[in-house]
Amino acid sequence: MIGIGVIGYGYWGPNLVRNFAETPEARMVAVSDLRHERLALVGQRYPGVQTTKDYRELVADPRVDAVAIATPVSTHFEFAMHALRAGKHVLLEKPLAASSEEACRLIEEAERQRVVLMVDHPFVYTTAIRKIQELIASNALGTIYYYDSVRVNLGLFQHDVNVIWDLAVHDLSIIDYVLPWRPRAVSATGMSHVPGKPENIAYLTLFFDSPLMAHIHANWLAPVKVRRTLIGGSRRMIVYDDVEPSEKVKVYDRGLTLNNNAETVYQMLIGYRSGDMWAPHLDMTEALRVLASHFVSAIEDKAPALTDGEAGLRVVRILEAASQSLLERGRPIEIAAANR
Amino acid sequence: MIGIGVIGYGYWGPNLVRNFAETPEARMVAVSDLRHERLALVGQRYPGVQTTKDYRELVADPRVDAVAIATPVSTHFEFAMHALRAGKHVLLEKPLAASSEEACRLIEEAERQRVVLMVDHPFVYTTAIRKIQELIASNALGTIYYYDSVRVNLGLFQHDVNVIWDLAVHDLSIIDYVLPWRPRAVSATGMSHVPGKPENIAYLTLFFDSPLMAHIHANWLAPVKVRRTLIGGSRRMIVYDDVEPSEKVKVYDRGLTLNNNAETVYQMLIGYRSGDMWAPHLDMTEALRVLASHFVSAIEDKAPALTDGEAGLRVVRILEAASQSLLERGRPIEIAAANR
Amino acid sequence: MIGIGVIGYGYWGPNLVRNFAETPEARMVAVSDLRHERLALVGQRYPGVQTTKDYRELVADPRVDAVAIATPVSTHFEFAMHALRAGKHVLLEKPLAASSEEACRLIEEAERQRVVLMVDHPFVYTTAIRKIQELIASNALGTIYYYDSVRVNLGLFQHDVNVIWDLAVHDLSIIDYVLPWRPRAVSATGMSHVPGKPENIAYLTLFFDSPLMAHIHANWLAPVKVRRTLIGGSRRMIVYDDVEPSEKVKVYDRGLTLNNNAETVYQMLIGYRSGDMWAPHLDMTEALRVLASHFVSAIEDKAPALTDGEAGLRVVRILEAASQSLLERGRPIEIAAANR
Amino acid sequence: MIGIGVIGYGYWGPNLVRNFAETPEARMVAVSDLRHERLALVGQRYPGVQTTKDYRELVADPRVDAVAIATPVSTHFEFAMHALRAGKHVLLEKPLAASSEEACRLIEEAERQRVVLMVDHPFVYTTAIRKIQELIASNALGTIYYYDSVRVNLGLFQHDVNVIWDLAVHDLSIIDYVLPWRPRAVSATGMSHVPGKPENIAYLTLFFDSPLMAHIHANWLAPVKVRRTLIGGSRRMIVYDDVEPSEKVKVYDRGLTLNNNAETVYQMLIGYRSGDMWAPHLDMTEALRVLASHFVSAIEDKAPALTDGEAGLRVVRILEAASQSLLERGRPIEIAAANR
Repeated sequence: MIGIGVIGYGYWGPNLVRNFAETPEARMVAVSDLRHERLALVGQRYPGVQTTKDYRELVADPRVDAVAIATPVSTHFEFAMHALRAGKHVLLEKPLAASSEEACRLIEEAERQRVVLMVDHPFVYTTAIRKIQELIASNALGTIYYYDSVRVNLGLFQHDVNVIWDLAVHDLSIIDYVLPWRPRAVSATGMSHVPGKPENIAYLTLFFDSPLMAHIHANWLAPVKVRRTLIGGSRRMIVYDDVEPSEKVKVYDRGLTLNNNAETVYQMLIGYRSGDMWAPHLDMTEALRVLASHFVSAIEDKAPALTDGEAGLRVVRILEAASQSLLERGRPIEIAAANR
Repeated sequence: MIGIGVIGYGYWGPNLVRNFAETPEARMVAVSDLRHERLALVGQRYPGVQTTKDYRELVADPRVDAVAIATPVSTHFEFAMHALRAGKHVLLEKPLAASSEEACRLIEEAERQRVVLMVDHPFVYTTAIRKIQELIASNALGTIYYYDSVRVNLGLFQHDVNVIWDLAVHDLSIIDYVLPWRPRAVSATGMSHVPGKPENIAYLTLFFDSPLMAHIHANWLAPVKVRRTLIGGSRRMIVYDDVEPSEKVKVYDRGLTLNNNAETVYQMLIGYRSGDMWAPHLDMTEALRVLASHFVSAIEDKAPALTDGEAGLRVVRILEAASQSLLERGRPIEIAAANR
Repeated sequence: MIGIGVIGYGYWGPNLVRNFAETPEARMVAVSDLRHERLALVGQRYPGVQTTKDYRELVADPRVDAVAIATPVSTHFEFAMHALRAGKHVLLEKPLAASSEEACRLIEEAERQRVVLMVDHPFVYTTAIRKIQELIASNALGTIYYYDSVRVNLGLFQHDVNVIWDLAVHDLSIIDYVLPWRPRAVSATGMSHVPGKPENIAYLTLFFDSPLMAHIHANWLAPVKVRRTLIGGSRRMIVYDDVEPSEKVKVYDRGLTLNNNAETVYQMLIGYRSGDMWAPHLDMTEALRVLASHFVSAIEDKAPALTDGEAGLRVVRILEAASQSLLERGRPIEIAAANR
Repeated sequence: MIGIGVIGYGYWGPNLVRNFAETPEARMVAVSDLRHERLALVGQRYPGVQTTKDYRELVADPRVDAVAIATPVSTHFEFAMHALRAGKHVLLEKPLAASSEEACRLIEEAERQRVVLMVDHPFVYTTAIRKIQELIASNALGTIYYYDSVRVNLGLFQHDVNVIWDLAVHDLSIIDYVLPWRPRAVSATGMSHVPGKPENIAYLTLFFDSPLMAHIHANWLAPVKVRRTLIGGSRRMIVYDDVEPSEKVKVYDRGLTLNNNAETVYQMLIGYRSGDMWAPHLDMTEALRVLASHFVSAIEDKAPALTDGEAGLRVVRILEAASQSLLERGRPIEIAAANR
């Protein structure tokens, strides 16, 4: 039984607490938050869970084996480093840290302490993304041509990070998980519509060594919520719509074969599509339940998590390069190699 | 009664012929095409219309007052210049020409001949885009923050131009019509998935002097047809979905006021939206019918067309800059001022 | 080459003329209509086609081998009988006739004259309904449990017939084609919202000998256009949405087996669905093109049409029973056996 | 502070417990259920709540002021009567009781004891239905022509009641709340596809004294979840789609005026719609939270609940008449007047 402490009971923390509370191999021990009313809420919902305003007290609690951190990115490093140094396993809300340097130091400390360092890239634990990863890995799509994602809504503005670090990070973690290549460079554009505040709209193009491109549109100021990803391959294509209650993943047979006979394609006119479509059944298990179990298993098995510190670092490196490109209105920026 | 000759009876030409045939002030006189079977089809459908393989014969016909050209972009200049020099009014399928230099020379020749030169930017003549232009002009949206368009399908591959010149050109013409500012620079990325062929997927970001950005996603290799544009403003936002049979334009009240009280926004979390939505009724008149009438009226009134040569030139200049940026993986390229 | 005359150039007639004009084995000879302006329109579009206000003149034309009738139902019998007696093949817009007695007499006259009598049940000639028929015939759905259709819009009100004879007739013709059983009784309810006018909203339940039921909702006064049919079977289920531009037919694996283990089902809770979904590719051929070819082939091959007079009669008999039930607020009415 | 006991912790009970637990003026005191594992779950989630297998023990607990019952319909009468006789306020999951006789006896006992008797008609407490009621009451729709609802899914089969008592009951409760007239008769058809089990598919038509009709399609065996209601009026129409995450209620301007000029309508052809559409903002408060507060307020204010015993009885009377009609394949059955 792994004892869990959660730092931060704002937007995401309650989801972590709820899921660890229902994970059989875990026990919710303590929650810390600076706000009295948030702790009162914990007390009302989970009478047996300890609450404190001081995260150090939570980390010091001997019943706490592992710490989950759901606080603003700027505080990740401090809280996580403190917990790692105390020999606790650490799960961090995405993104792992505010810089690749911070991420590297957390990874090194976790190695030194021989504890698990995991980042909460939640989509990696959804049945939809698992299915997509499986389809790509089994070559069902053929050669991958592009990954294109729109992730927009009228949503929670963040003070300390821009929309790339808040929304696009989800796609970067998905790309890291499902695609067999690593991006080499990024071109990003974006804008803030509130003077002095982080960018609330941004577009990223990722370049790879292969003839593949990825593009992400992230926007906090859209009239509607859209979560739609197109993945194009030489054999099949996917539409992944996360707002759909059912049929989130649709697989389209292509019906045209580009490489074999390029000329045919150039004479083809197709109104909509030319092949069958198939929507695999996906079970409805909540991703955070899977993630919570995975974290506990990694601790018990002393195995690296699927979304370990290295995965978190790779994503942070893209975020850094994208931020630089954004300042230069789309000039392409190379992404540092992920090895430290 | 204006006599019309149409050069090119491939994909778009039949639409032009059909609409001019039903325009009361116009008379369809002749059609030219290099392919016998296309001319045979004209004969079957319009027994009274002259057909010829030689466009010069069509232009020389004294009953032809105006020539509409629906041929590959690379041939626009030759055909249009020939017709202008013969003193004929000219309507060109988008884009106006294959280069800004060609476009300038066509504009000059039209001025010299005192004839109408018009480009077929069809969306400008739709009731949906008319309504959007009206909403923006009347300040119903407030300050415009962004224009974001996705225009993708599994479609007709073009031999001579890439997807920017084929699909993104529609959005550039819409932007030229509905926004009160001109883009100053562009960052474009894209890729070809058929060796030796033009790019089939591309992303454009347009920069303006004001705090406004525009972005276009154009893709010939998508599993589904998407035609969705988001326009964000400080007071209201629009979702324009051209695939919807009804309710193509939806106007969303924002429910948040960024400029007045930036701090509030940063504490706001909204699941979906926070205000009312309104979908204005749009009548169903076919855009090409409106365009055909407009062309005829411009000729009769000796007035410049709404989408005149200058509008065509402005769009071609953006296409040129985008093509350059695309070669440099998104490096921003300034757009030449539209004055010749 | 079969010479075609079309009586009635109102709403549906132009579709018939256009499709016969493009059918290689047919030749459009003449069109009759009582309204001068409609005939003028024919003249403008098809300069070679004869026009007349007198349908008898059209029928008498020796170049006319077959007559297609697209006029109000109340006139079907007169026009069709006249044409049959003149030895002409006849195609009638749905429904075949205003009563089963009229239908029987037309069938008998066609037999006597040894000519083709066909009813235009257009959905039978769509690729979507063909695919559904094929799936049912091959037992892909298992035992059929129900057919449920919603066919509503804000549409063309009819003077001479109610919404059952105008809209529900489509579903009755589909049921006649795709289901292996004939309905035995019908319960219908409905209402008119314009005093003295035919019912503009109606609901039909059809009873069969097997444990199958069919239900149709037809409505001229709905805010949106809906064309959605659910077909439930013991193995798979279909959603057929004719308003969808693509993916009109979706086939759902059931994931529950009622007959084998009824108890399990009663403990099952499923949020959405429990199996895969598959949308077969459907080509986009216009149904009326297929229908026009089929009519011409039936004439040439001296073979009965798929939707022959008997099919038309079966549908009219259900319409009659439904009209009776509607007067009695849903009291079930037996449907007369189709044999004459 | 009102002490609450909940009988039944199956499908619906957890929702009641959760919402009473978060209602400030209520205190969750006890839960009873026959199944040990369900009570264990209560203990894990709400350590302070008493659990028992014996509902009589729960009712006898002096801290319990009010009892909420979420058990099969067949048990409603026994549990509710026991609680009422003990002087407890009672909230019953829909429908109120298994027969109108039972419903009447519960109402009489509640009056005798001067306690609140309320039925959980949950849709009455949603923001969507509140908005619809308001629009109808303010005459925004004009004369109401019809209420048409489709409520289908692949769902939880019930042992003790058919799909009318399980799903259609929701629409009957909505109709009771939003329409100013009471239904006078009902025609119902339906079928069971599992031998010996209750009907899993059913259609109801309700007749009123005014020129209004209502129709409900309820189905446990559909491939997709549909929750769509059309409400037609002489001035405006509503589409209420409860599956939509946003824009659940859409209001359509009609654009045609039937009563004033009936002839015009009969010449009108409209593809889709002819007026504007408007989707009012709806806040996202959970209906059960509103219902829980309302129950507590009714107790504190000694006021009848909005969905009191009488409302429950009216709905049960329609259910009884519909069940009778269903046995007679749609023969219309009068609905007993609601006064006892």
